[in-house]
Amino acid sequence: MALDALEHPPCLDADRKDYFVERDGVRFAGSHLIIDLWDACPDRLSDPEVVDRVLRDAAVATGATILHGHFHHFGPGSGVSGVLVLAESHVSIHTWPERDYAALDVFVCGACDPWRAVPVLKAGFRAAREEVSEHLRGILR
Amino acid sequence: MALDALEHPPCLDADRKDYFVERDGVRFAGSHLIIDLWDACPDRLSDPEVVDRVLRDAAVATGATILHGHFHHFGPGSGVSGVLVLAESHVSIHTWPERDYAALDVFVCGACDPWRAVPVLKAGFRAAREEVSEHLRGILR
Repeated sequence: MALDALEHPPCLDADRKDYFVERDGVRFAGSHLIIDLWDACPDRLSDPEVVDRVLRDAAVATGATILHGHFHHFGPGSGVSGVLVLAESHVSIHTWPERDYAALDVFVCGACDPWRAVPVLKAGFRAAREEVSEHLRGILR
Repeated sequence: MALDALEHPPCLDADRKDYFVERDGVRFAGSHLIIDLWDACPDRLSDPEVVDRVLRDAAVATGATILHGHFHHFGPGSGVSGVLVLAESHVSIHTWPERDYAALDVFVCGACDPWRAVPVLKAGFRAAREEVSEHLRGILR
């Protein structure tokens, strides 16, 4: 199956019309984690190949399907900005190696679990500390 | 200047080593808006060309520089997922036309103002209602 021909996210139920999910009686579009990593390894934060690989590993850990990736390196020793477009939403990263810091977000819908990305990201960038907050997106009221 | 050769975000001060910004005595990496649009026009939410154009207009309104864009259409009448990688971070969108709903985020650093994207997005998708929350990313403590 060509990914470009995907008509709905593969981890979702094709019989459901709107792909919204339900947890504890709340119906919503998906879960969006805002992740700050601190005291990470600057050599890894400034290496676009490492950043690409760690993000892909993290996306796969959530159960998502990667449709597209793009990573921009601001120069030797400098930061990397990148995104993965998923069939179930996206993962993004922006790194500040001079601060041993990375700002990420992981947004997935359907049966994917964004929290499974967190240990992969923390280990991949050798971060000593993470701050994570969750937003349920598109809550039906 | 080739965008791929950008060594630092152009709206930032090249003399600053870490590109962090300061507001009201707080130093941080950038401002990240989480934006839910409701009661939007489903025809626009399911048109990848409209989504692409509105997102680019919104990114430019913040003062940001677009490095890369990618939009995936899940099929006729279905949603669109897309991202813009900016020199100053990113903009993303995921649309659910069957719910008249779009989930967006706008993350910019430096002198860019993410709040200037909100009216552009709301008008571009003919949304009657928006929910916006702001995260200051990478706060130095």
